[in-house]
Amino acid sequence: MDYMEEMGIKAKRASKLLAASGSLKDRALLCAADEIEKSADGILAANKGDMEFAKKAGMKDSLLDRLQLTGSRISSAADGMRKVAAQSDPIGTVISGGMRPNGLKIEKIRVPLGVVGIIYEARPNVTADAAALCLKASNAVILRGGKEAIRSNTAICSAMRKALKRSGLPEDCVQLVTDTSRESAGKMMKLRGYIDVLIPRGGRGLIRAVAENSLVPVIETGAGNCHVYVDDTADVDMAANIIFNAKTSRPSVCNAIETVLVHKDIAKEALPAIKARLDEKHVEIRGCSRTREILGGSVVPATEEDWSEEYLDYILAVKVVDSIDEAIEHISKYSTGHSESIITKSYGSARKFTSRIDSAAVYVNASTRFTDGGEFGLGAEIGISTQKLHARGPMGVNELTSSKFIITGNGQVR
Amino acid sequence: MDYMEEMGIKAKRASKLLAASGSLKDRALLCAADEIEKSADGILAANKGDMEFAKKAGMKDSLLDRLQLTGSRISSAADGMRKVAAQSDPIGTVISGGMRPNGLKIEKIRVPLGVVGIIYEARPNVTADAAALCLKASNAVILRGGKEAIRSNTAICSAMRKALKRSGLPEDCVQLVTDTSRESAGKMMKLRGYIDVLIPRGGRGLIRAVAENSLVPVIETGAGNCHVYVDDTADVDMAANIIFNAKTSRPSVCNAIETVLVHKDIAKEALPAIKARLDEKHVEIRGCSRTREILGGSVVPATEEDWSEEYLDYILAVKVVDSIDEAIEHISKYSTGHSESIITKSYGSARKFTSRIDSAAVYVNASTRFTDGGEFGLGAEIGISTQKLHARGPMGVNELTSSKFIITGNGQVR
Repeated sequence: MDYMEEMGIKAKRASKLLAASGSLKDRALLCAADEIEKSADGILAANKGDMEFAKKAGMKDSLLDRLQLTGSRISSAADGMRKVAAQSDPIGTVISGGMRPNGLKIEKIRVPLGVVGIIYEARPNVTADAAALCLKASNAVILRGGKEAIRSNTAICSAMRKALKRSGLPEDCVQLVTDTSRESAGKMMKLRGYIDVLIPRGGRGLIRAVAENSLVPVIETGAGNCHVYVDDTADVDMAANIIFNAKTSRPSVCNAIETVLVHKDIAKEALPAIKARLDEKHVEIRGCSRTREILGGSVVPATEEDWSEEYLDYILAVKVVDSIDEAIEHISKYSTGHSESIITKSYGSARKFTSRIDSAAVYVNASTRFTDGGEFGLGAEIGISTQKLHARGPMGVNELTSSKFIITGNGQVR
Repeated sequence: MDYMEEMGIKAKRASKLLAASGSLKDRALLCAADEIEKSADGILAANKGDMEFAKKAGMKDSLLDRLQLTGSRISSAADGMRKVAAQSDPIGTVISGGMRPNGLKIEKIRVPLGVVGIIYEARPNVTADAAALCLKASNAVILRGGKEAIRSNTAICSAMRKALKRSGLPEDCVQLVTDTSRESAGKMMKLRGYIDVLIPRGGRGLIRAVAENSLVPVIETGAGNCHVYVDDTADVDMAANIIFNAKTSRPSVCNAIETVLVHKDIAKEALPAIKARLDEKHVEIRGCSRTREILGGSVVPATEEDWSEEYLDYILAVKVVDSIDEAIEHISKYSTGHSESIITKSYGSARKFTSRIDSAAVYVNASTRFTDGGEFGLGAEIGISTQKLHARGPMGVNELTSSKFIITGNGQVR
């Protein structure tokens, strides 16, 4: 039997035991948090190995930063687990219910998905977070992280499995795919019947490959070509401040903005104010011709590609538009459906923007950087869905569940 | 450009206009109901053509029955549309929401999916039902029915499109694929970016083919290998009555049962009582060896295949089990996750069965035939989901929607 199918069988079996084990999972989460802190030295040593290997392989600095673990990052992963343990149990919640005229009582109950597969890049903190959230929702998880993080991931998983065993739960609730070849991800996508849902986390290429090739149902996450539109009635200081925050507070994340659209009637006033703030962080502006007329020659001319680009960097595309309708049209054409914001004082513009923009998160007068499970009050987050089925926007533990109907009667027939 | 891509573009455009058109859709539904009744003669003539063609091609009687339209079937389709029009509008509903400590107001709002594709067999009543439900949820729909129903479907769609136009909505809210070759279904599955979700309705083969080949997200529906388990404490008359109803009231539908499991301690009493009822409708019993010992030689020996078979016919597989645990194990192994029922007087058995059986609908002391949108109080139904993502069990108009977050602030940055 193929090793991946074997992992699938083990995961399925573990998920069934887990579904029947109630409160043990919170104990296991607390135990895993302690175990990860106790194993910090070993995890850091493993991470050092990963870092050396990645540096030699020429990994970019921004990716190296995501790969690196520190004592405080390990503690914060452990604290994250404790917070997940403290959340209320989603499983068994009655979502809706009632009595039918024929005396049947119908309840819709929250149940686990079963087995969750996660395919992600070289970010060892995802390993702990994702495993904890899956466990909280009573799902077994199969983790397949990037090859550069394999030493760190192995150390983290081994601590978690130790904690599971000690808490009386099957170790196979958390399994790590140690074959980090391209083939192993392909094998996971074929594990229909064993894996109930596959969540790819990472760049656009990874997500598209999984969405297009998987036989297992997929929840697409992540890619964010986010916009701020500055309406003609905007408060210019607020606009500049929100754009500065949304672009520069953490450019590498998916809820950072990539394009700003400015109404023509406010462009002369707003663009210089926006540029002044962005200059503090040396943000490169790529502008349309009208933007360059106002801001001058330091602005790089934008090409068609710039409107779809997810820079994840200190670069911002800027376009002057004739109307809110043109802004909405531009966003509808180029956005990945993640997060967009309008800066306006007009009730009508706010209403039009929020009703017509079809993205997971639509903002009025606030930074797109708030699109995050924690900021939305959902607790920890497994990713941000940019698809429309099952879940849309930040996904917390509820989004890792399914439901079933329980119908109780006293002999009803139809 | 390919005709299918063209349909996709038209559908996307129509869906955007539809999303912005509010109450027009209910007017269009009422108008479509009238139009379908007014066009009854033309629809019946078209259906006659379909029936003649299908009979010549040697279609089975049970399928011919699904293909046939009558005056009263047309009226009931029209009434179904009026009922859908009378339902409250799901779009814009605030699903959840609240104020965050930083003053951001976050609301989760129900929005349309966009464009829904439905691939189904030769059942013209699905055409009207599915189009009405999609319209109610402000989705454009692309319908691809079985080739044997093409004349009926064309006539029904033409009436609906006339009604859409008269109500001020784009005709392309409802489009029918007139190419009923195998290739056209394949093309729909590749229409990523135009179709937001694909719902296959029909036999297992069709559903599996769509689930495995589609690049568009799929909601799997339908196949039902449903079980009744007769516990040792069951009321035997109730058991026989429920089994009789669940098997014979409409054997061709997915919520009919295919296998009965009987606890060994009640088998001698229960099996003859069950058989007596089933004999009224000449149901063929395929039994395990213990069943045959009790019921005698008229019972066909069951083979391994019988436990997974969805007969959709007057045939029932019967097995005697040693315990409720064996029953649960059998169901977990062979069920398609649709509907299962336990007949019992024991609180403990009811609790165990409902918590451990992982199917969309789990019953105590009632017929599985109730797994239906109407019976569950959801209004009309677009199908019964047997998958775990997005929707599980009977899907009404809410299951044809997605959500988005609207976040309103006064300058918040993170």
